[in-house]
Amino acid sequence: MSATTQLTETSLSFEQKLDRLAAVAVNAGLGLQRGQELVMTATLHALPLARLITEQAYKAGASLVTTLFTDEQSTLLRYRYGADDGFDKAAGWLYDGMAEAFRNGAARLAIAGGNPSLLSKEDPEKVGRANRAVSKAYRPALELITRHDINWTIVASATPAWAAAVFPDLPSDQAMAELWDAIFAASRADVDDPIARWKQHDAGLHRRADLLNEKRYASLHFRGPGTDLRVGLADDHLWMGGGTHAGNGAYCIPNMPTEEVFTTPHKDRVEGQVTSTKPLSYQGTLIEEISVRFQAGQIVEAHAARGNQVLQRMIETDAGARRLGEVSLVPHSSPIASSGLLFMNTLFDENAACHIALGQAYSTCLKDGDSLTQEQLASRGANNSLIHVHWMIGSNRIDVDGISAAGGSAPVMRAGEWV
Amino acid sequence: MSATTQLTETSLSFEQKLDRLAAVAVNAGLGLQRGQELVMTATLHALPLARLITEQAYKAGASLVTTLFTDEQSTLLRYRYGADDGFDKAAGWLYDGMAEAFRNGAARLAIAGGNPSLLSKEDPEKVGRANRAVSKAYRPALELITRHDINWTIVASATPAWAAAVFPDLPSDQAMAELWDAIFAASRADVDDPIARWKQHDAGLHRRADLLNEKRYASLHFRGPGTDLRVGLADDHLWMGGGTHAGNGAYCIPNMPTEEVFTTPHKDRVEGQVTSTKPLSYQGTLIEEISVRFQAGQIVEAHAARGNQVLQRMIETDAGARRLGEVSLVPHSSPIASSGLLFMNTLFDENAACHIALGQAYSTCLKDGDSLTQEQLASRGANNSLIHVHWMIGSNRIDVDGISAAGGSAPVMRAGEWV
Repeated sequence: MSATTQLTETSLSFEQKLDRLAAVAVNAGLGLQRGQELVMTATLHALPLARLITEQAYKAGASLVTTLFTDEQSTLLRYRYGADDGFDKAAGWLYDGMAEAFRNGAARLAIAGGNPSLLSKEDPEKVGRANRAVSKAYRPALELITRHDINWTIVASATPAWAAAVFPDLPSDQAMAELWDAIFAASRADVDDPIARWKQHDAGLHRRADLLNEKRYASLHFRGPGTDLRVGLADDHLWMGGGTHAGNGAYCIPNMPTEEVFTTPHKDRVEGQVTSTKPLSYQGTLIEEISVRFQAGQIVEAHAARGNQVLQRMIETDAGARRLGEVSLVPHSSPIASSGLLFMNTLFDENAACHIALGQAYSTCLKDGDSLTQEQLASRGANNSLIHVHWMIGSNRIDVDGISAAGGSAPVMRAGEWV
Repeated sequence: MSATTQLTETSLSFEQKLDRLAAVAVNAGLGLQRGQELVMTATLHALPLARLITEQAYKAGASLVTTLFTDEQSTLLRYRYGADDGFDKAAGWLYDGMAEAFRNGAARLAIAGGNPSLLSKEDPEKVGRANRAVSKAYRPALELITRHDINWTIVASATPAWAAAVFPDLPSDQAMAELWDAIFAASRADVDDPIARWKQHDAGLHRRADLLNEKRYASLHFRGPGTDLRVGLADDHLWMGGGTHAGNGAYCIPNMPTEEVFTTPHKDRVEGQVTSTKPLSYQGTLIEEISVRFQAGQIVEAHAARGNQVLQRMIETDAGARRLGEVSLVPHSSPIASSGLLFMNTLFDENAACHIALGQAYSTCLKDGDSLTQEQLASRGANNSLIHVHWMIGSNRIDVDGISAAGGSAPVMRAGEWV
């Protein structure tokens, strides 16, 4: 890393940093191609960033940018006034439309940053039904994303409710400013030549994934407070990290920020106890202090100190919702972990700690995974589900060992850091 | 009309009037059914009304309300920064999705009120291409609407740019307040029991349409300054006005306000000269002082003092864009005309004056029209096009005669009023 790119440009105005975030999102994150259509989703609170991304996308040659805005207030109105029998309904026509757009070559950008506890006070039974309906309706579009058929990325905007959740003791304006600064820093947008910095960071993640791929561990063993978990890895698994060549020819970095290397666990080979180390914000509900026991890959006991009902409904979504679809390693010294902040947003918190995901596996994390049938994927251990939900199990008190097929053990992480 | 319902409740607060507008839009305009899905479109400026409509829709039993918000600023960014070759692209996937929603039983509500001259300063060639692409992409969804397969309505929200266009000499806040008052009055939302008032008004429009249906005129003859136009009516045409029974079983009043009775002209039997009496706001461009000559149903000369290029591109959309799809009679004493305001918005201005529409005909304005094939519709004289664009030809200086099949003439309107 050169001295020039290490420099944070503290003299940049807020508007300049926001514009740089939009520029890296489009050009480094999304890798938008000239003539490509862009489908963006955002809450109304993210309008300023959505407009700058729209501008950057057109400057990069987008043929058309369509933003689907969601209004959190309107979502709440459904819970206040909607009839009970309506909660199994989702806007399938809209998700089908998105899938059609992706099949026809559109890229996908999501702006994260909604209120992490928007639905915390709503009836968990209704929340669960609504979430399940959305998961089901979104599945065809999501498959094109998880298979990396298209270029996509997720980037974050500060919003008042999120800022208040992260900085509960600060006045609203100050909380927003602090959250924006944290986003700019984690997203490498407040530096000289952010595109070059992202290329460098991306190369580092690829080197780490290559190293793990050479090791070919059969499983990982996580040990820490409340955690003694063996995660078998899928046959012919591939570790991935940073950017990826999408099926449509574009190169994208799907998450901004990203600090993780990750692969596909074996859906039938997960054993033991695991405890979450950060709260999970799941579709508007905060789920805290999750404690789960796996047996033959499947959750046989699950409990959360807060949001337990939503957790139970989540793992009841389908058979695959009780099994793992991803395991991910992040050093505790990652810039996001170093910030010391709890973001209550997966995009950030998952890049501050090792984590696992319940639900759908990425076929791209298997050798030649994109050309395998559902049966072939399953026979290698790749899980299948409507959901894909990350939660954090890493901290500076977690050790990770790699276990070879022959049973030999080697340290991978100690006290949350790479060995 | 009873004294009670004639009373305008001047003591209502703005919030109360806005809420009543939302309530009549959902319950009288849309006729939303219990369990029905609702697809709404709105500019971001209409957010307060969109939220109240969402609330009223859920109270009326909507299973799900999805609002597609458009951001006018983002639209402008495309013209500022978008590559030239992108302007033939439309979000077909989104319009296809809407058509899917309608086929699956969703209702449709549009909130009108965008900036009437948003695109006036943009390249008319690009505006024309973009509009044509949208018209083409929207066609499958629009057909379900124009055939009244589904219940739908259009209602208006004041927005800053629209208010400034209508009240250019007033300060912004005052212009918004004046426009809102005009909308509440024209939409019969500021009265005691607005639903009852709408039922009464609706019955009046049906009586007027019934009268014209008894006459069975072969054509109408419009005479006024710059206008001497004979509009042949389609064979087995039906005059309509007010609400309609949609194919999905709901009863809806598709425009709020509505003061017109209208029918389908014969696409090959329009002859003579016609001059617009109000500006037309067509997808962001104001087109003023339109003067057009028809021969054998087709425009053979067209000119506008302002927006002429956009007019020319509009009538070049397809073969049917040069022919009439609707003729509509509105007395000059309608409440909207009486307001003396020029709204620069079709939803309002078309209810202040007699008008014609270029483009697609409504098959519902023909006897058994819904069961006819495209060929049968055409043989009766119904026009076919991607567009359906109203413009005003009525004023207090327009006379209208009805001409019978035998050639006899009878006065229908004199100086803009029903005879």
